[in-house]
Amino acid sequence: MRIGVLGTGMVGRALAGKLRELGHDLVVGSRVAGDDAQPFAEAAAHGELIVNATNGAYALDALAQAGAENLRGKILVDVTNPLDFSKGFPPSLFVSNTDSLGEQIQKELPDTKVVKSFNTINCEVMVDAARAGGESDLFVSGNDPEAKATVSRFAREQFGWKNVVDLGDITTSRGTEAYLLLWIRLYGALKTGDFNIKIVKK
Amino acid sequence: MRIGVLGTGMVGRALAGKLRELGHDLVVGSRVAGDDAQPFAEAAAHGELIVNATNGAYALDALAQAGAENLRGKILVDVTNPLDFSKGFPPSLFVSNTDSLGEQIQKELPDTKVVKSFNTINCEVMVDAARAGGESDLFVSGNDPEAKATVSRFAREQFGWKNVVDLGDITTSRGTEAYLLLWIRLYGALKTGDFNIKIVKK
Repeated sequence: MRIGVLGTGMVGRALAGKLRELGHDLVVGSRVAGDDAQPFAEAAAHGELIVNATNGAYALDALAQAGAENLRGKILVDVTNPLDFSKGFPPSLFVSNTDSLGEQIQKELPDTKVVKSFNTINCEVMVDAARAGGESDLFVSGNDPEAKATVSRFAREQFGWKNVVDLGDITTSRGTEAYLLLWIRLYGALKTGDFNIKIVKK
Repeated sequence: MRIGVLGTGMVGRALAGKLRELGHDLVVGSRVAGDDAQPFAEAAAHGELIVNATNGAYALDALAQAGAENLRGKILVDVTNPLDFSKGFPPSLFVSNTDSLGEQIQKELPDTKVVKSFNTINCEVMVDAARAGGESDLFVSGNDPEAKATVSRFAREQFGWKNVVDLGDITTSRGTEAYLLLWIRLYGALKTGDFNIKIVKK
């Protein structure tokens, strides 16, 4: 599949590495092109599917550089979190509660099918569900049911995510982004980032 | 055990019902005394252990009525969430991200050992861990390790909570309170409140 990965930080590199290994036709986009990376717009134009793995703080800037016309009609998998490290660790969120980064991105790109997902786990677990140490859940949020189904199938087939919970429209990103505030504390208590949550229900 | 339960809403009634059934010596406190309920101060004075099951929006008021002197040196299990329903459903949080209701309560009652817990599940699951449908996790946050150990033991012995995760000091309430924003969306997706999360880790 032709995929554009936006971002060359830890998350972008983990995703690109795994997607290449799986044989996908990748262009990785970066603010500063060079080496393996092209400008954001090239990566966006290349992909049938685009993954937004930029730093949350610069995600809207990066997507503006990627260009709405290059993202039009496509699925954008948004794996970012609005983490604010300006006061050190633990971070807070720069948007939360009554809004979310997922919603802000969807608002900026009304003709793109934004699917918020993979933002509740670290990047090693993103690309290898088993690394969490057992069966656990992945979440999708977005306004387009077909796009969510595509991302869920992709997650299952490529990364081993058997359990994908469709939370609803893009406003449900508020839930998964806010969960980061718990994730951070769990990371502190468990002393590993290789974990996830599994929904248990009656 | 002599327990004071503050609050006669759904959560307070579920907790009081179960605690009575288990044979504890209960006084239930309410804004408006009558029937089974005494003033908040009577319930607080009675308990060796106090459970704050008031409506989050009025929790600080209720605790002021309960009286710092009646809570001094005691464990206050705070099961509230700062839910704001003023704009309907889904609710938002009236404090979040860089602060929490747990912290605000601890600040108001510096001589009380506040343990935030049970706020990540509905009240039927609170008092019966098995009702979530399988093994799952309960969280405790608080500044006093001994108080957290007491609450964890109580949760295990009285309500069947085998897995209690100590998240750290009272600031970790930010994590479990923010999780409510995900809980609400899960409640929408799963169509039941009888669920919980289980930590899966390597």
